Amino acid sequence: MTIQDTLIALGRAARSASRPLAAASTAQKNQCLLHLANLIEASRDALRVANEMDLQAARAQGQDPAFVDRLALSDKAISGMAEGLRQVAALPDPVGELGPMRQQPSGILVGHMRVPIGVIGIIYESRPNVTVDAAALCLKSGNATVLRGGSEAHHSNQFLAGLIANALEAQGLPPACVQVVPTTDRAAVGAMITMPEFIDVIIPRGGKSLISRITAEATVPVIKHLDGICHVYIHEQADPEKAVRIADNAKTQRYAPCNAMETLLVDHGIAERVLPHLFEIYLSKGVELRTCQATRAALQSFSWADKLLPASEDDWRTEYLAPILSVRLVHGLDQAIDHIAKYGSAHTDSIITENHTIAMRFLREVDSASVMVNASTRFADGFEFGLGAEIGISTNKLHARGPVGLEGLTTQKWVVLGNGHIRS
Amino acid sequence: MTIQDTLIALGRAARSASRPLAAASTAQKNQCLLHLANLIEASRDALRVANEMDLQAARAQGQDPAFVDRLALSDKAISGMAEGLRQVAALPDPVGELGPMRQQPSGILVGHMRVPIGVIGIIYESRPNVTVDAAALCLKSGNATVLRGGSEAHHSNQFLAGLIANALEAQGLPPACVQVVPTTDRAAVGAMITMPEFIDVIIPRGGKSLISRITAEATVPVIKHLDGICHVYIHEQADPEKAVRIADNAKTQRYAPCNAMETLLVDHGIAERVLPHLFEIYLSKGVELRTCQATRAALQSFSWADKLLPASEDDWRTEYLAPILSVRLVHGLDQAIDHIAKYGSAHTDSIITENHTIAMRFLREVDSASVMVNASTRFADGFEFGLGAEIGISTNKLHARGPVGLEGLTTQKWVVLGNGHIRS
Repeated sequence: MTIQDTLIALGRAARSASRPLAAASTAQKNQCLLHLANLIEASRDALRVANEMDLQAARAQGQDPAFVDRLALSDKAISGMAEGLRQVAALPDPVGELGPMRQQPSGILVGHMRVPIGVIGIIYESRPNVTVDAAALCLKSGNATVLRGGSEAHHSNQFLAGLIANALEAQGLPPACVQVVPTTDRAAVGAMITMPEFIDVIIPRGGKSLISRITAEATVPVIKHLDGICHVYIHEQADPEKAVRIADNAKTQRYAPCNAMETLLVDHGIAERVLPHLFEIYLSKGVELRTCQATRAALQSFSWADKLLPASEDDWRTEYLAPILSVRLVHGLDQAIDHIAKYGSAHTDSIITENHTIAMRFLREVDSASVMVNASTRFADGFEFGLGAEIGISTNKLHARGPVGLEGLTTQKWVVLGNGHIRS
Repeated sequence: MTIQDTLIALGRAARSASRPLAAASTAQKNQCLLHLANLIEASRDALRVANEMDLQAARAQGQDPAFVDRLALSDKAISGMAEGLRQVAALPDPVGELGPMRQQPSGILVGHMRVPIGVIGIIYESRPNVTVDAAALCLKSGNATVLRGGSEAHHSNQFLAGLIANALEAQGLPPACVQVVPTTDRAAVGAMITMPEFIDVIIPRGGKSLISRITAEATVPVIKHLDGICHVYIHEQADPEKAVRIADNAKTQRYAPCNAMETLLVDHGIAERVLPHLFEIYLSKGVELRTCQATRAALQSFSWADKLLPASEDDWRTEYLAPILSVRLVHGLDQAIDHIAKYGSAHTDSIITENHTIAMRFLREVDSASVMVNASTRFADGFEFGLGAEIGISTNKLHARGPVGLEGLTTQKWVVLGNGHIRS
């Protein structure tokens, strides 16, 4: 069989399994998740043997320790997978939910029912726990899954696939509800993203180059996460204490997440009241500050002024994911919104202000997946937003935008109830 | 300028105009629609002169009368455009709607705000009134539009574009909020569907070949309408009177719409109670009946039995859009659902039954954009569903599914309200 044939066989099996899975009861799906949690805990030793094969191969290839670390299924990571499964089992099932049924002039009742999308393809790198996390969210939302993990986690993923198949069969569900692509050949990705007849949506999880490549080549819709160039804008009428606290947290609570602030915009009229204190915090934490000319002019009298580097045009477009921050002074809301529209990535942006009208204009006019008032951009997260779980954060505008939980893995259909009604 | 350059200039202008349009007030948008309605009525004569140029060109090319008819802007069609604009002005504005804001454990309030998508590209054929209808729905929903009508309606469309630009400017909105592609070159379509940086979604309106080509080649998301192979399934426990009424209406009320029934499925146990009467109706209306072997066997004693033609495998997959119906007997719900899953197009399917549990299973398990109980498939329509207007019917699973009204032209963003909240 060619790779193409293998993937077509997988896709066909997934499409076929998606029908009984869509009709499965909540209890059946939850039992499967709980059973899998127990299986994983009971298979701890065997799982570590499989994982060790991946780790040895990675070390033999001279991979760096951080890479090997991401790959390792420690005892804690294994317990974490089981715990994650129990949490997903405890979430409400979105499938089958029937919204308000509104009576139309013809007499029919019309409403929406929430249903699974069908078959979801997940393409990811490194961490083998994604195999279990992604399978659990797709299963709970009634979708069949085709999982394509990184070749570096091949043995771990295959072992986990076996456990998942056992758990599905124990609940009378087709094992093809969750399939892990059995080959490490890169052509498998190309095949997966071009079979809309078998796969309804692709969710890539990984680095930007993986996601860009998939988006460019896919004929299946992609729920993608690209850049997070997030802004905090300190408006002239901000409470300085809140401004400093939020701007500190948005940048320094963690540097690597996509919802960390990368550019700070500050109104001229408040710069001298917030920036000295804030910059001292940043510098004490080792954050490199790349600033506009006006920022440096305003703060030139401070002893640390020589530490303020100039920002280039490129800085405004850069997602650092590191202890680096670009800072620009602006003249009011319109200029701040213009900056965000021109340089931002429509991910997450926050305004700090006490002025209600200004806050409402920011919420309405900044075209980002998450817009905030007086809160840290770091809140843009499925758990913090109350979704209970997160398969990723979408920078798409259509279907799922921002943090994606179980509901983002479903769609809606129209339901019409008549009593012999015909159209006249 | 090459076609590509022309389209890039249009796209850039649309993207730029989309920001003030997204922030425009409901009153401003409604005034613009009402002003345009008046302008169209006041420009009746000039519009007919432009339209006459298109009609003469069509006749000179030897187009058939039906084609010329679709192109003609009769007095009634002109009044219809103006009336349509006034109806869209009267609809509620979906933009800015803020859903429930739920408090999270951290203390932040989290909810959704409905916002425009941004820039919508519409590609359509023949009828010049689509220029006004589509522009009105996009404008009301706060989206900039790039319209690409058929070359056969070029003069009519250009004239209407001028009126639309006047109406926009009169309300202080950028004329680039609605742009009609000024060239009839087919390369314009190829350019439009591959500029995701300027156009957020493409809506093609026209024949299947146009839509298939656009779907295959687009890198911009497409809200598409493909086949409507709609089924009515008469369950064994149907009320025969309702069954006959609905199956008649679903097929014969109009033959051409996508939501007309193409295949009738009937349980063996009720066939002899409903089919004789129903088939007599169909035959009296000139509907050709293509039937399974079992149907013909069950009805062989009737005088008109020789008029029942055999159905081929291809018939189950065919959207006739004509007075032809395929008919198949089945053994119960599961077989009916299997048939719909195998041969249907996931557009609109209806069950006729008095059994509640069977009805609920049909609603849940048939994976179509619209699923119905005891109602004619002909109800699958934006106006009948209470949307107030319809830009089309989507056979996509993601974002907009089934009839698409103003809400389908919007998206949602997350809104977070804090009071100095930071993530710990």
